[in-house]
Amino acid sequence: MSAFNKLVAHSQKISHFEHLAAIVGWDQAAVMPSGGNEARSNAVAELSVHIHSLHTQPQLADWFAQAEQDTLNTQDSATLRELKRQWQQANLLPESLVQAKSLAGSKCEHAWRSQRGDNDWQGFEKNWAEVVKLSQEEAQIRAEANNLTPYDAMLDIYEPGTSSESLDVLFNDVKTWLPDLIDQVIEKQSSEHFIEPQGTFETSKQKALGLEVMKLLQFDFEHGRLDESVHPFCGGVPSDVRITTRYDENEFVQSLMGIVHETGHARYEQGLPTALAGLPSGEARSMGIHESQSLFFEMQVGRSDAFIEHLAQLAGKHFTQHDKALFTQDNFQKLYTRVKKDFIRVDADELTYPAHVILRYEIERDLINGNIKHTDVPELWDSKMQQYLGLSTQGNYKNGCMQDIHWTDGAFGYFPSYTLGAMYAAQFMASMKQSVDVDGAIRSGDLSPIFTWLSDNIWSKGSLLTTDELVKQATGETLNSAYFKQHLSSRYL
Amino acid sequence: MSAFNKLVAHSQKISHFEHLAAIVGWDQAAVMPSGGNEARSNAVAELSVHIHSLHTQPQLADWFAQAEQDTLNTQDSATLRELKRQWQQANLLPESLVQAKSLAGSKCEHAWRSQRGDNDWQGFEKNWAEVVKLSQEEAQIRAEANNLTPYDAMLDIYEPGTSSESLDVLFNDVKTWLPDLIDQVIEKQSSEHFIEPQGTFETSKQKALGLEVMKLLQFDFEHGRLDESVHPFCGGVPSDVRITTRYDENEFVQSLMGIVHETGHARYEQGLPTALAGLPSGEARSMGIHESQSLFFEMQVGRSDAFIEHLAQLAGKHFTQHDKALFTQDNFQKLYTRVKKDFIRVDADELTYPAHVILRYEIERDLINGNIKHTDVPELWDSKMQQYLGLSTQGNYKNGCMQDIHWTDGAFGYFPSYTLGAMYAAQFMASMKQSVDVDGAIRSGDLSPIFTWLSDNIWSKGSLLTTDELVKQATGETLNSAYFKQHLSSRYL
Repeated sequence: MSAFNKLVAHSQKISHFEHLAAIVGWDQAAVMPSGGNEARSNAVAELSVHIHSLHTQPQLADWFAQAEQDTLNTQDSATLRELKRQWQQANLLPESLVQAKSLAGSKCEHAWRSQRGDNDWQGFEKNWAEVVKLSQEEAQIRAEANNLTPYDAMLDIYEPGTSSESLDVLFNDVKTWLPDLIDQVIEKQSSEHFIEPQGTFETSKQKALGLEVMKLLQFDFEHGRLDESVHPFCGGVPSDVRITTRYDENEFVQSLMGIVHETGHARYEQGLPTALAGLPSGEARSMGIHESQSLFFEMQVGRSDAFIEHLAQLAGKHFTQHDKALFTQDNFQKLYTRVKKDFIRVDADELTYPAHVILRYEIERDLINGNIKHTDVPELWDSKMQQYLGLSTQGNYKNGCMQDIHWTDGAFGYFPSYTLGAMYAAQFMASMKQSVDVDGAIRSGDLSPIFTWLSDNIWSKGSLLTTDELVKQATGETLNSAYFKQHLSSRYL
Repeated sequence: MSAFNKLVAHSQKISHFEHLAAIVGWDQAAVMPSGGNEARSNAVAELSVHIHSLHTQPQLADWFAQAEQDTLNTQDSATLRELKRQWQQANLLPESLVQAKSLAGSKCEHAWRSQRGDNDWQGFEKNWAEVVKLSQEEAQIRAEANNLTPYDAMLDIYEPGTSSESLDVLFNDVKTWLPDLIDQVIEKQSSEHFIEPQGTFETSKQKALGLEVMKLLQFDFEHGRLDESVHPFCGGVPSDVRITTRYDENEFVQSLMGIVHETGHARYEQGLPTALAGLPSGEARSMGIHESQSLFFEMQVGRSDAFIEHLAQLAGKHFTQHDKALFTQDNFQKLYTRVKKDFIRVDADELTYPAHVILRYEIERDLINGNIKHTDVPELWDSKMQQYLGLSTQGNYKNGCMQDIHWTDGAFGYFPSYTLGAMYAAQFMASMKQSVDVDGAIRSGDLSPIFTWLSDNIWSKGSLLTTDELVKQATGETLNSAYFKQHLSSRYL
């Protein structure tokens, strides 16, 4: 067996254990009773150790050296590139640092769960200092290995090929027009009237509605399912994708669009190339590209006039006891495009969301690069919040820098993915519209032409191309924030 | 670390992977969409290989040799005994035989799924010949290693310590009184009138009823759940026990008592000693003892007058649209104690069930010991069926020797567990009644005294004692079929 084929077989072996991890992970979040947690955590930790041991077997270095001497076709070369990237990532950090960061992150997160409610920055800051310190150490090691700045080395985990240099260009452009745009839209919407959901929206009906919308979005129920969890997610494996949502019986708006969002993630997974199953080249390209698919479904398709019409009609069909005026297209449009300056990222609308992300990006970039101290964060947060959204978080830590779990766990470099995803989605839609009658397809109820384009250009490519290549092949150019601006302006103004 | 402690740590490590296998096994049966099966099967096969490799690591032989030199307390000695037994079982068979039998079993089972419907003995027999041959080889190797007859060596997998010598005594006794008892009861019941379920019994209501009955039986929902699957089972791990049932909207009788049965299995698992988690000494004693708990719940408690009264009342509460006469205690009693001579074991009532098992036991014992050929089975089946239940299966293979999956897969030695379980359950009840007001407890709705007895005498013992020791400590004597006869006579005559 050639060295390349040995690497392929080894990767497929690892993927079998990752399959188990994905399924028991879904189980833990969606169905496991609370008393099962301790034994489960031990089992999952054992599995993680085993997967890590497979990634770090000593013979792999020789296999990579040999495989790189071989003449490989384009696809195999891409597979080898991704295999090597995965292997390097897994072998880069000393075990002691991985464990120390994991422990510090767990400790910080556990305490944060009560400290946040208590607005206890002093308490949080003590634990967080260690998380930041260890994350900086990690970034330093990654930076030296990959010849990148520390923050770019962290970015590289989630967005291979993306640099803060390019993010600065993209986000600085957004900053030139977003605050004004937000103000204009809020002014415009101030005179609008709409009906908010009132009364009870039974979980069973919300679920039936969600499943119907998933069918409209051609979710493959032979290869996946919908369940419930406290924090909605898309998990499982490409042949069996598990999405979850959370139902609130006081309203259906969040859960319904949440399902549309997760269905976007799911269809990307379901559409990955099966011939490359078990190989990193057959996996999703990056966190940003993954988010581009969920946001393509949620924002580009899901909030389009044509799709909103479907949503309103279907919701009216399921909630027959409520005021019919709630389920008009016009009312749904207003419910789903309401813009408001507020403190919390996860509750933010499409328009203010990028401001939340850019704020975090700028702070975490400077923090990981060592240009600011972790104790500077609250003040910086307040000043940027004032600048981008006109809100003060002075002394309001719980709705300021203590609101997200990401930093608590040391996942620095992740936040930009959200807004990169929104930008990619806008660019994909602009490009798609050159060859596909998107509105016509949505109106007809057969969205196949849209999904064919996504499959051909994104899903079926897995990680065979770099992100830049993928976007360029799909749209003729690399990421350009103009499409995002154009999309937001035309929808909200 | 002492050799014994190394063995303990190794066993706990293996148990973490078995935890994963149990959860993804539940998932596959209860929730996995069909398209996920291929990738899942590959992942599970990889996990099995890994678990096997852990059981067969070469250093274990030294560790066992060293540990046997150590002075251990009673509990650790029992743990070492069970660890060694498990290790020997895992290392006994050559890998080639395990694989060949697995392949032959899969092939035979796959074909059987259609051959059974077609009554195709000729087709089945060809595949089955190989399964029988390989099972005989397996039995021979096990027999030589353990100094047992071939069949007893297979029995030993499921019922350690039980021999065909003792089974012959028990079952020959049953054969002296069971056929007459069945005839008497059928004669007695022939004049009884009762109302059978009619109309639709919604799945959601059956489930709500089942959950309420599980609460009455003190199922611990912090450590387990109820779901649905085609073939009901009890799976998961002791800290998170997953039971399933199958709902038929035309009736609720089967599913309801099925839940009671699986709850018995579940409470045994939930009641195993947590201090021995991850060790074979902390696991259920045997298949027969496991079945004794499910049958204790289903037959001893579940079909008692006092419990039937609860069931009838609860069912009436959930199925408000149906004829109230259906939900009287008298009618429920008749529904749940109807005796009928019929072909199919899994549908058999409490009284005829042992006849089905004894027939299989006698045939598989002689087959594995090489005293008969596999082609002799249909004729033997017919003649024993005539003798025990007065039914002919001449030419009726699908309702005769082709009805069960066990032999198809080569699981020879398993069948006796069912009737051993029924006998143990009767003996446990007789003994319990000497110190516990069983009927009073059931009538009061607080069954705690019953569960305390089971916990003290069975569940908390895990596999620390041998089966004989366990039964003797709990009841003052080893298994005695007189209690079973007494139970059946007093209930049915």
